[in-house]
Amino acid sequence: MVVDQLDSDEVDRLFAALADPTRRDIVARVLTHETSVSVLAERYAMSFAAVQKHVAVLERAGLVSKRPHGRERLVRGDVDAIRAAARLLDQYEEIWRARIGRIEDILAAPAEGDSR
Amino acid sequence: MVVDQLDSDEVDRLFAALADPTRRDIVARVLTHETSVSVLAERYAMSFAAVQKHVAVLERAGLVSKRPHGRERLVRGDVDAIRAAARLLDQYEEIWRARIGRIEDILAAPAEGDSR
Repeated sequence: MVVDQLDSDEVDRLFAALADPTRRDIVARVLTHETSVSVLAERYAMSFAAVQKHVAVLERAGLVSKRPHGRERLVRGDVDAIRAAARLLDQYEEIWRARIGRIEDILAAPAEGDSR
Repeated sequence: MVVDQLDSDEVDRLFAALADPTRRDIVARVLTHETSVSVLAERYAMSFAAVQKHVAVLERAGLVSKRPHGRERLVRGDVDAIRAAARLLDQYEEIWRARIGRIEDILAAPAEGDSR
């Protein structure tokens, strides 16, 4: 199947990054508020290292990016990776619709020898 | 964030199942053609057991279902799980749009004391 923009490894990383509730929550949060790793650690009652690890997984998947801010690193969400994943899922929907379309054509077509 | 229909574990399983190129390919295939596990094994040059394992991961994620057919098991894709995942990604897009909307409102609003 055609995957526009993302290669297969990138898609693997993207879906694997989304397969965790804390990481999904972090993405939703940093899409609206650029947030430091230490504030995230507080928010999720996790060690700084544990959040850093989640953020690294999200960063490799292209779902967030970091920028230095004083002695901190601010994390922000990137909607493009989300969109790429959504487009990919839409392709499955299209594959499925194409099949349903064919089935409907078959059902709509007059059966051979259907003149009785 | 609100996840309609799916609970958090189900979402985990869904994205984890999609984080593998062979499994994504199997889903696309069985969305259009109900296919036996042995035909899938042939197609992917894999052992029957290896394909069975992929199919089991997809089945637990709700992406495919199996039905007996003679001595075989036929696998078919289920578009509902795909749609649920797509809706979930749309929610991130909405979160992001809401933020952009607020930023635009701020930029459009006349600055205080802007009468000079």
